[in-house]
Parts: sequence; structure tokens; C-alpha cells
Amino acid sequence: MRVRGAPLIGVVGAFGLVLSLKKIKTRDVIEARKQLRKYADLLIGTRPTGVNLRWAVERVYNASSKTGSVSFLRNVLTDEAELIMKEELESARKMGEYGEPLLEDGDTVLTHCNAGALATVGYGTALAPIRTAIEKGKNISVIATETRPLLQGARLTAFELAHDKIPVKIISDSAAAQILSRGMIEKVLVGADRILRTGHVTNKIGTLPIAMAANYYKVPFYAVAPFSTVDLKTDLDKVVIEERDQKEVLYFQGKRVGPQRVQALNPAFDITPPELISGIVTDKGVATPPFQVGIARLSTDSTKKSMPNDIHTT
Amino acid sequence: MRVRGAPLIGVVGAFGLVLSLKKIKTRDVIEARKQLRKYADLLIGTRPTGVNLRWAVERVYNASSKTGSVSFLRNVLTDEAELIMKEELESARKMGEYGEPLLEDGDTVLTHCNAGALATVGYGTALAPIRTAIEKGKNISVIATETRPLLQGARLTAFELAHDKIPVKIISDSAAAQILSRGMIEKVLVGADRILRTGHVTNKIGTLPIAMAANYYKVPFYAVAPFSTVDLKTDLDKVVIEERDQKEVLYFQGKRVGPQRVQALNPAFDITPPELISGIVTDKGVATPPFQVGIARLSTDSTKKSMPNDIHTT
Repeated sequence: MRVRGAPLIGVVGAFGLVLSLKKIKTRDVIEARKQLRKYADLLIGTRPTGVNLRWAVERVYNASSKTGSVSFLRNVLTDEAELIMKEELESARKMGEYGEPLLEDGDTVLTHCNAGALATVGYGTALAPIRTAIEKGKNISVIATETRPLLQGARLTAFELAHDKIPVKIISDSAAAQILSRGMIEKVLVGADRILRTGHVTNKIGTLPIAMAANYYKVPFYAVAPFSTVDLKTDLDKVVIEERDQKEVLYFQGKRVGPQRVQALNPAFDITPPELISGIVTDKGVATPPFQVGIARLSTDSTKKSMPNDIHTT
Repeated sequence: MRVRGAPLIGVVGAFGLVLSLKKIKTRDVIEARKQLRKYADLLIGTRPTGVNLRWAVERVYNASSKTGSVSFLRNVLTDEAELIMKEELESARKMGEYGEPLLEDGDTVLTHCNAGALATVGYGTALAPIRTAIEKGKNISVIATETRPLLQGARLTAFELAHDKIPVKIISDSAAAQILSRGMIEKVLVGADRILRTGHVTNKIGTLPIAMAANYYKVPFYAVAPFSTVDLKTDLDKVVIEERDQKEVLYFQGKRVGPQRVQALNPAFDITPPELISGIVTDKGVATPPFQVGIARLSTDSTKKSMPNDIHTT
């Protein structure tokens, strides 16, 4: 939990596998790869919900087959990890470009948790289109949910936006529906930890009720994430949702808020069904409903980009 | 904010008006009533959203016309305030009785904020049916939202239920939808600060997203409140929603969580539309949709009670 944000977790996992080489003393490349596999599984097992971690770690692990010599492993793996980082930076820039046309001058955007620069290696995911739109001269304001239990919205999103002089206000998570009901929000942009081929979006706990409220009040709801977040294989009923330490709910910054001997439930993520989602913005383009088709199209054709303007005209 | 919970606010307002007599020095009953009117308006103005406060204070004020002598005012007003308190105790008992048949043995009930003994003078509102069901031998568990920003769920609801050995677990407000999606909740019971003749329920911020999630996953959602909470006159667009001090959101138990110079929005209540509500449990019976009809029936016929079993058979 020292590292957070799906894209950043992926990059850190990639470099983590590079570092594990320090523990591998053998000169036999087959034995070295066997040990590397164990470290890869260890890293992947630390955060079961997101998909970027597995993707990045597997990619670095697979790069190990490029050499037959243990002495070259470090270079090969480091190159792959650095490539992943560069791609993430480029990916954030592209999410900004594809998502930017969805925002109009004067929009107020609701976001949840932190899907910004502090969760990624670049511009962020959900915040990338906002930053790009502002760069292009649009006035955009943000309302950020505080995001209990760990308050990433209040601590991180509000911090990074205020730091960059982007207007931002904080609300309690449970005020999002009321704020939407008052017509104060034009668009909702959130990140994603895992996107299924069906368009189901796993993201920070509290995303689902915001999607329900946005849908109820007919406010467009977009998930923004690199295409590496898309998991084409796993079925919905196989997605593992982390249940985190109940102390995150029962204590606040070391101080107990719940009564003694009372327990808490602390699911870390929820899954938003595709019928509540207006579009999924990726670094390969914007997928629109039906997502089964839209995601498959982005996945098979990585050169011909989906134009985000589609979303305005359909 | 030292006193909370709509029914308790009403009772305290009633006794507050009695206490205001201490400030009234005149011997002229017409002048005394004129001054009493000002104190009544002052008390009513302190909490604009709920309806119980106005109802209770007006009732004590109106009792002042029963005597032509200032020296009897204290007795007359005290009697009326004590009657209100006794009626509230009886009212909680009745809400428990009318609501109890809605709960089945083994149910887990989700509740929001504190609508229990600590918000009222008796058994509570939303918690009354739970307590009555348990008295009748049913096994009922509760999941309580922590209820940001002031954590009434974690601090009060969990406390009073644990104190009475009723199984309770705490969740972040934003986890309610996910918990509902997992089929862990059989019924949702919440209180109400004001119920319109149309069935719109004003209650603590965060009630609306829970109602949306309950509706989405087809879990029955009930509001429980004394009939004195029903406001037959006010139109939906005239309901005033308190915007409370943004420090409640920016600080967590005295410690700043949001960054410096960032502001917060802090609406205290939201309004749940009738189409998301399965039933409204009052001390006069249970109103079912269409609420315009159900509420009018309860309001005109106070002797023939609506049987709560209706809700099972329709």
C-alpha cells in the first residue's frame, strides 16, 4: 500500500522484478529464470485486483528469454522495465488527447479517488483529459470525492489539482448523488483498476454508487485507463476483490472512530456494470457501448485509432 | 448540532420554548405570546430541513392560547411539551410494531446514519423495527455505514447496537453499493428528516445513493419515521437543504485532511424520490406506493391503522 494507482503499481512491479535479480546468484540461465518466475509470482500476488501489475511483471519476465546468459539478464530486464515506463508516459498523453474532446468549456467534472499524476508516471488517467482540456484553453472545474477509507481524493487529487491551480472542491463520498441531482456536474471521469472484455469496470470502492447516480441523472460517466488495464480473458465471476484490513475503516490516522469490539467490512473495489458507463477512454481510443464490440475493436486494431469524436456524434 | 435526530430535535425544541418563558417578564398575556412567537421562530430557524422541530415548537406555542393568564403559561406549555415527549415514546413503540413484520428471521439490515435511541427519546425510528424483531426472537444483523462527515453511524449506531448485543459491522459509506451487489443485505432501513406528501424522503446525506443501489439490486428500501415527520404542505422544490460548515468535510476529528486553501461542499441532506422507496413505516402504519395515496390515507384516518402485513401480500 506504499505504492498506489494501477499504472504506477505496474511500473514499480516491473522494476521490482529487475531488482529481484540481486537475489539470484546462479550462473545457470534456466535456473535463474526458474527463480525469477518465483519472484514474479510473489510480486503479482501482492495486489490481486488490478491487472497492470501482472501485465507489467509478466512482460519483464518474458523478456528474460531474450538472452541465454545470466550476465545479460540485468540489461535485458532493465530495458524492458524502462520501456514500460516510457510507454506509460506516452499512454497518459494519449488518454488526455482521446478524452479531451469529451469535455466542454465550462464543465465541472466529478472524479473519485486519485487517478492523477500521483497514481501514474505521467499525467494520470482520469485527470489526463482534464489537464489536456485545460492546456487547450477550456475552463474545467473539478469536484473530488474524499474517498474513504484512505482519503486519496482529499489528500491526493485535491492536492495535485490545487497545486496546478485547477479549481477543485472536496465532498464526502456520499454527497456525490446529491451534487449530481442538483445539476452541478456535466461529466464524471474515474480511473479503472481492471476492465473486462464486457466493459465491467473494477475501480476504487465507491465508483459504483457514483455511476448509478450519474446514470439516474443522465450525466455521462467515463472510465479512463490505459489499454493495459483491459483484461480480455477473465470472466466477471472470477474477478477477485481485495478485502483490506478493517482497521482502515475503524481507525482514522491512528485514532479509533468505531466503538471497541465492533468489526468492519472493507472491500477495496467495486465493479461497475457496462450499462452504467457512457464510454471507456484508453490510450488506444475511446470504446463506446456495446463495449464487447468496442473493446474488441480497440484490441485487434492498434494502429487505426477510434476517434473520440465518435462519442459526440452517436 | 449538540442535539441530533429529527424526533429528539422536536422534543428539545418543545422544551426549549418552555424555557424561553424565563426571558419573558411581562404580565400581559398578549405581549407574552408576541414574545413567545419570536422565540418560537428563533428555535424553528436553527434547523430548516427537518419538519419535527417546527411541528413541536408550533404545538407548544399554540398551547399558549389555552390560558388568558401569564402565570399559567408555564404549566400549560410544560404539559404540552411533556405530552409531545410521551407521544414520541409511544410513537417509537408503534414504528417498531408496524415495521417488525417487514423483517424476517436471519435478515441482515443495512442502515445509514443514526436513527436509533440516540436520535430519539425512545427506541429510535429505523432501529425500532430491528429492536422489536429481536425482542420477538428473530435473528437480525445490522451493517451500519460510518456516515461521513460526522460519523454518526460508526460513533452512535454501532455503539448503541453493540451495547445492546445486536450484531453490527461498520462499512465506509461508499461500500454500501458493493455490499448490496454481493447479496449480503435483505432490507435497508433508514430514518427520515422530512417526508413530503409525494413520498420524497429527505434524510442524511448519503441516503439517496443507498436507495439507488438497493433499487438496482432489488433490495427493499424502507424509510421509518413518526408521522409528525410528514410535511403535507411543502412542495419538493421548496425544501431547503442545509449546507453545513465545510470544515466538517475538510477536517476529520479536528485534523485537517484536505489540502490548505481547498474548499469543500457539505450538503447535510439529500432527497430520495418515491420510486426508489418500497415503503414508509410510520407510527400510524406503513404507507406503500403510490405514496401520494398511502400517505393521504394515513393522514386522514388516524384510527384505522394500515396493517404492515399489506406490504408482504402486495
